[in-house]
Amino acid sequence: MSQRLTIALDAMGGDHAPEMVVAGADIARERHPEVRFLLFGDAGRIEPLLNQRPSLKAVAEVRHTTDAVAGDAKPSVALRAGRQSSMRLAIDAVAKGEAACVVSAGNTGALMAMAKFVLKTLPGIDRPAIASFFPTQRGESVMLDLGANTECSPDNLVQFAQMGAIFARTVLGLVEPTIGVLNIGSEDVKGNEVVKAAAARLREMPLPGRFHGFVEGNDIGAGTVDVIVTDGFTGNVALKTAEGTAKLFSEFLRRTFESSWLAKIGYVLARGAFKRLKARIDPRRYNGAMFLGLRGVCVKSHGGTDAVGFANAIAVAVNLAANSFNERIKEEMQRVANANPLPDTKAAAV
Amino acid sequence: MSQRLTIALDAMGGDHAPEMVVAGADIARERHPEVRFLLFGDAGRIEPLLNQRPSLKAVAEVRHTTDAVAGDAKPSVALRAGRQSSMRLAIDAVAKGEAACVVSAGNTGALMAMAKFVLKTLPGIDRPAIASFFPTQRGESVMLDLGANTECSPDNLVQFAQMGAIFARTVLGLVEPTIGVLNIGSEDVKGNEVVKAAAARLREMPLPGRFHGFVEGNDIGAGTVDVIVTDGFTGNVALKTAEGTAKLFSEFLRRTFESSWLAKIGYVLARGAFKRLKARIDPRRYNGAMFLGLRGVCVKSHGGTDAVGFANAIAVAVNLAANSFNERIKEEMQRVANANPLPDTKAAAV
Repeated sequence: MSQRLTIALDAMGGDHAPEMVVAGADIARERHPEVRFLLFGDAGRIEPLLNQRPSLKAVAEVRHTTDAVAGDAKPSVALRAGRQSSMRLAIDAVAKGEAACVVSAGNTGALMAMAKFVLKTLPGIDRPAIASFFPTQRGESVMLDLGANTECSPDNLVQFAQMGAIFARTVLGLVEPTIGVLNIGSEDVKGNEVVKAAAARLREMPLPGRFHGFVEGNDIGAGTVDVIVTDGFTGNVALKTAEGTAKLFSEFLRRTFESSWLAKIGYVLARGAFKRLKARIDPRRYNGAMFLGLRGVCVKSHGGTDAVGFANAIAVAVNLAANSFNERIKEEMQRVANANPLPDTKAAAV
Repeated sequence: MSQRLTIALDAMGGDHAPEMVVAGADIARERHPEVRFLLFGDAGRIEPLLNQRPSLKAVAEVRHTTDAVAGDAKPSVALRAGRQSSMRLAIDAVAKGEAACVVSAGNTGALMAMAKFVLKTLPGIDRPAIASFFPTQRGESVMLDLGANTECSPDNLVQFAQMGAIFARTVLGLVEPTIGVLNIGSEDVKGNEVVKAAAARLREMPLPGRFHGFVEGNDIGAGTVDVIVTDGFTGNVALKTAEGTAKLFSEFLRRTFESSWLAKIGYVLARGAFKRLKARIDPRRYNGAMFLGLRGVCVKSHGGTDAVGFANAIAVAVNLAANSFNERIKEEMQRVANANPLPDTKAAAV
């Protein structure tokens, strides 16, 4: 166990748990031979699944609990009543140092509430943020917050920028990631006081990247910047709007290819190319929203995903843990604090 | 002139003005034979264009001014210094009753500031909103506000819902439009206090449509509701995110068809079907953002549009004016005020 990276899995979270979780762990095992798994959940359901997968069973340990957080449970209720739930015990394993990270496809609000309560935030970070990466015309970008904080202060946005840039450096491998604050215009006079104050701070302070300025909604798909910073309300709406538009476009495309015989034949000829496109924009490929800013790595998988998608969420967690993402955040917050004490008075005066 | 509908055009607004404006008016003239035009701008540049289009010239009158609002002018500066600008004089024509509506492809912020100042808001409406309609999987929906008000009260959102529903009835021709408030979850507990308070009001009051509840970003493209209500910050980001995603998808599609010889041949066969798709999602078709809630019809065209797009913006203005949209808003606000006095105390207590 010494050199291995241990991952705690909430085996009961998600629409198709625990089957999807176990199958996903098996795919992840092939990709990350250095990983071992702690599976939290109903042993009576998990053990038979593991018995069908001896290679996974060899690197997996089941921690039995019959309690699970319901998909529609209120975060406050889950936090209070779910102390023996598979989700909570998986998070506890990270807090105890038994696991390097936790992955769950369960209730997002409950997961965030429990992770915040159990793991606490990193030094210098006031609030954790949900981050995800997605395809753009230029490659891949990361956006945060996607829903953890419906209202944010300029300080929160500044910290999101720092965490997002470190993410782009450590996980996306960019040397000097560009950072943009999402706004309704690129001019300095546009927007609300929060984004203006955050941008003013980001323009002056040392950053693990380059501050680009304001970006607009269309810059998300264009890939104008590597890191898009926004509050959780706007970010959540933007992410889901992009998903909805992609679905709309796919539906229009399907209707187009079915609208005539020539188009149908055209589709047959172009099918190989479309399969590659489909693979590139496959939502499972971008599965795994990261809870950044906690003293522990916590990744949320889409609830409705399959084994392939869940394996990708595990890959995100492995990537964060293996690259010591949280250590880098701590170093960065320390570096900024030493080099340039945060002008709290200025932020307060806005 | 008696039975004619007169439209005031800011002939100098937009990237390709005045050529685009005059050519757009000419297309609109063919579609709306009942319309006549007042063109505000530099007569030295407009008259030669009209001389090339005798049928348009017969129903057009030029009002000369050399002043124009710059595309990057601050709204407050435009309002103060632009009293003789083509934009301002076109709005003045509506205020004086010389024209039924005004269309401009100029500076959005300046247009909104001037239109608010000159035309004032309708009785019962505290703030005007920018609205636009767009394609969905189910047909067409309307969303507002798209950027006029970065911060909104519950009352503002309720009024947007009323105006949006009347728009859906009069212009989209729906009998009982469905209304949704944009949020980050469909459950009642999700979101900020403003959307929760607005939804609580909308659930109880009589409406010119049916209140569906909260909707999320992906519901925009799905067409879950006919009217999407949101603040101007979120709405602007959502609209531009959708535009950016559509562009990203188009770019991926282009690369896909170019990625192999088979795919190229496939495209040739399916080209007719793609032309129809392109026509359906052509942004020019959805050009024309409406400033709802003013005592006069004011429509903003995209600045970069061409004659076809500008003609569509004129069509939107004609549609609003011909359907007595503003009269219907007044009747609706009166109806609600009589039937169910607005519980101001409740809103204030939120």
